[in-house]
Amino acid sequence: MPEMHGPLNPALAATFPPPVMEARRWIANASFPADRPLLNLSQAAPADPPPEPLRQAMAEIVLSDPATHLYGPVLGLPELRAKVAADWSAAYGGTVRADQVAITSGCNQAFTAALATLAGKGDNVILPLPFYFNHKMWLDMEGIEARYLETGDDLLPDPEACAALIDDRTRAIVLVTPNNPGGVEYPADLVAAFRDLARSRGLALIVDETYRDFDAREGAPHDLFADPDWDEVLIQLYSFSKAYRLTGHRVGAICSSPERLAQVEKWLDTVAICPNGLGQRAALWGMENLGDWLAGERREILARRAAMDAGFAALPDWRALGCGAYFAYVAHPFDAPSDVVAKALVDRASLLLLPGTMFGPTREQGGSGRAEATLRIAYANADLQGIATLFDRLRDVTARGL
Amino acid sequence: MPEMHGPLNPALAATFPPPVMEARRWIANASFPADRPLLNLSQAAPADPPPEPLRQAMAEIVLSDPATHLYGPVLGLPELRAKVAADWSAAYGGTVRADQVAITSGCNQAFTAALATLAGKGDNVILPLPFYFNHKMWLDMEGIEARYLETGDDLLPDPEACAALIDDRTRAIVLVTPNNPGGVEYPADLVAAFRDLARSRGLALIVDETYRDFDAREGAPHDLFADPDWDEVLIQLYSFSKAYRLTGHRVGAICSSPERLAQVEKWLDTVAICPNGLGQRAALWGMENLGDWLAGERREILARRAAMDAGFAALPDWRALGCGAYFAYVAHPFDAPSDVVAKALVDRASLLLLPGTMFGPTREQGGSGRAEATLRIAYANADLQGIATLFDRLRDVTARGL
Repeated sequence: MPEMHGPLNPALAATFPPPVMEARRWIANASFPADRPLLNLSQAAPADPPPEPLRQAMAEIVLSDPATHLYGPVLGLPELRAKVAADWSAAYGGTVRADQVAITSGCNQAFTAALATLAGKGDNVILPLPFYFNHKMWLDMEGIEARYLETGDDLLPDPEACAALIDDRTRAIVLVTPNNPGGVEYPADLVAAFRDLARSRGLALIVDETYRDFDAREGAPHDLFADPDWDEVLIQLYSFSKAYRLTGHRVGAICSSPERLAQVEKWLDTVAICPNGLGQRAALWGMENLGDWLAGERREILARRAAMDAGFAALPDWRALGCGAYFAYVAHPFDAPSDVVAKALVDRASLLLLPGTMFGPTREQGGSGRAEATLRIAYANADLQGIATLFDRLRDVTARGL
Repeated sequence: MPEMHGPLNPALAATFPPPVMEARRWIANASFPADRPLLNLSQAAPADPPPEPLRQAMAEIVLSDPATHLYGPVLGLPELRAKVAADWSAAYGGTVRADQVAITSGCNQAFTAALATLAGKGDNVILPLPFYFNHKMWLDMEGIEARYLETGDDLLPDPEACAALIDDRTRAIVLVTPNNPGGVEYPADLVAAFRDLARSRGLALIVDETYRDFDAREGAPHDLFADPDWDEVLIQLYSFSKAYRLTGHRVGAICSSPERLAQVEKWLDTVAICPNGLGQRAALWGMENLGDWLAGERREILARRAAMDAGFAALPDWRALGCGAYFAYVAHPFDAPSDVVAKALVDRASLLLLPGTMFGPTREQGGSGRAEATLRIAYANADLQGIATLFDRLRDVTARGL
């Protein structure tokens, strides 16, 4: 990179570049054989726009609702906050009030806003491995230590191991369930055990449920909202992007205490002023009208998951550590680190997957070796035909070697 | 406020709450006489939606362009970056390339992203007084010292006085021109003098030109882009919100070096993933199609400015320190601090203006007394009839007293 002129914040300089953009650069100048076009399973992003009725509703809102185009409240539209509160109360069997909900410009922003209220330079936050890379990036940028919680082959974090990592500068434990990148759904009692640990040590428990709508389990995935004092410890994050295919509109949510949301409001006012008006109205329309449609989306993604499970069961030498919601996290059979494998898969199999080195420390950085051994597959972006193609190509490249 | 449970970042706790939201609370439960409805001149926000042709174009994009709904590049749509580059090159008489432009989710985010690349806890940044409150809030949240540059009655900052504030932890000087809240347009040679100062001391010069489209001067407001090495020192910020009435869609821009934008990309990926797809396409459509319309908007706002100048010239005891673009910054005649005056104006005159205490340090915080003596009037939100009403009410309340 050419010389940088002017001051440079060393914390930002030391932060790794965005993995998804990095992966896009691998394919930017690549050409693929006509009979083997690129299969891009790198980003958790619906490939299709929102369903036609939602697009129609959005066009109508653009034309007929002037307030859509103007500044709104920093913490989001009152109607959307109230709808989230009502739906969460029903779904989780607890009580969530509208003043315990804030709307953000996407779920990444929900995380950064929540963290801003919790921790600053010199503090630390516990991240189970593998981590979601934007969580790690935020901590690096802010000079907050990411304290890694190792996980076994089931990718489930252990509360006792977590307890041993806590010191007087620890501010929060971050769980992502269903997990990105791991694809595993954390059992309800495990989530509750982390809540109890966080409460007993005076920490916040952040639970990122971006992929909640595609959980294979029926009913509530945990009972944390049933605790009447949930907002003393729990900060729950959500994204409307995956459920209603609104990734381009940037709408997410934070559930927390009104006192913490008053702090969140300062941060969001400064960084965003308000979430965008159309995205919020689209999310509300989706919640009000697309329940059946979303149930169908979930069934389709569960069918893809079943195809992934069957595919890996029949594929020698590969091993899925986790598979669910949007992701499979798999151990590859090659005698090369995952970043080398991922780039070779672009050339040799027209497959774009993200390497484990983007989701955890390398051996050089003190890691256990898992980062080098694994790949993330964002399989929910592919249909069943695409998943069949994925396995054809993996089988072929495994047989031929890299 | 009730007790806060869980960890609280002290830097965020010490940051003041969002002034515009605070002012909204003053009027939330107020009722106004039928013959004297609220005149809200608190926020720089168009009261009307985008012009009809732009709304029609946006509805069409929602229906016909699937990519609008999906993730886009972190640094923004290539077509919009190229359009900004071409228009800036023409408008400023210099060379701005597309890879020197990034699109952000509004201009506040442009500022925070730029600052993230420059400074961290323990560094300092120079803000002329009065400041734009979200700039000060970001510095507070990040533990960066806001070093105040006092200005005289013309509200113009002095480069020599600025030079005396610089030490080895200074990272940037921030100018806003046309100024928010001051309403003054900085002369081109003054901006150039700050650029020279920043360059000679190895600092970045941030120039926030959110209100550029309503500058009363013809032609380029400064010649910084004519310097072929401009991107070594200048970071220019812009907002599409005011020009095309897109405040609810959150679209802004940063012009800087590609090397700095690579750092910005890390921050934006983590905080926003990408600017929203529709807002960007609307901004591009506006740039391509609304040049004449925008020229008319500017003429209208200049007519409002003339009405403000005339109004204050005829109003005893009040004094406008600055008046231009969106704002007048005025000294009030009352024997009370501006925050008390502003609240009294809500009750006594159905006027919502922001007090100077939101734009600079109070005496208690080491200020000169100007914060207590002044009010900001976001007059561009009122039509000529509204401005006439403003002066009727100010005259009346001045005569009656608070």
